Amino acid sequence: MKKIEHLGVAVKNLEDSNALFEKLLGEAPYKEEVVASEGVRTSFFKNGPNKIELLESLNDNGPIATFLAKKGEGIHHVAFEVADIRSEIARLKQEGFEVLGDEPKRGADNKWVVFVHPKSTNGILIELCQEIK
Amino acid sequence: MKKIEHLGVAVKNLEDSNALFEKLLGEAPYKEEVVASEGVRTSFFKNGPNKIELLESLNDNGPIATFLAKKGEGIHHVAFEVADIRSEIARLKQEGFEVLGDEPKRGADNKWVVFVHPKSTNGILIELCQEIK
Repeated sequence: MKKIEHLGVAVKNLEDSNALFEKLLGEAPYKEEVVASEGVRTSFFKNGPNKIELLESLNDNGPIATFLAKKGEGIHHVAFEVADIRSEIARLKQEGFEVLGDEPKRGADNKWVVFVHPKSTNGILIELCQEIK
Repeated sequence: MKKIEHLGVAVKNLEDSNALFEKLLGEAPYKEEVVASEGVRTSFFKNGPNKIELLESLNDNGPIATFLAKKGEGIHHVAFEVADIRSEIARLKQEGFEVLGDEPKRGADNKWVVFVHPKSTNGILIELCQEIK
């Protein structure tokens, strides 16, 4: 775990929240991206060594829509950058964490990603991510 | 806003969660600290340029106890490091954010801190912090 790569924030309306986070962080998002496989539209803000990812749902029944219905807007996940995602998956499984999948998937922002279930991590949905070379 | 200084995580039992985060992050907490004014016992983990702060309540009616009762364990706040906390307080108030106080208070980890109400920030309780010189 090298650093907090980004915080994922579930939002109802990407344009409204882009404006809000631009005011908060003092900088506009540096990109927007649709991740069709996850049913989300995202934007990314730089904040020093970290990023903030805003996630808007493209449908009514995906993970972000479900999260918003249950908990409202807020932090959806915390992503940690790792050097070798496959060895981290193996290490965390051995330590008893519930890693959601044996293989990383292609996520937003040119990353291999995998999630760890919040019930094994004090209620925090954790993403591991590694840049795709 | 220079970076994510730390994530604050509300936990029921600091010892249990110290063990869990040590497994997750691969490193033990580098310090523990009681902040009597906030009614919390905390521990801090380094993660590259960022930190994770675990917060256990010392009482049954403080902010962490209330959070745990309402939402369970999980991310309680996100702290951003700022260069000049007083000018950030003024800037955010002018932008319409609900900053909780006109003056920073002394927080954990040798910091001046102030909070921004989550209702003005997409559901995220935000802390601004600046190292006390």
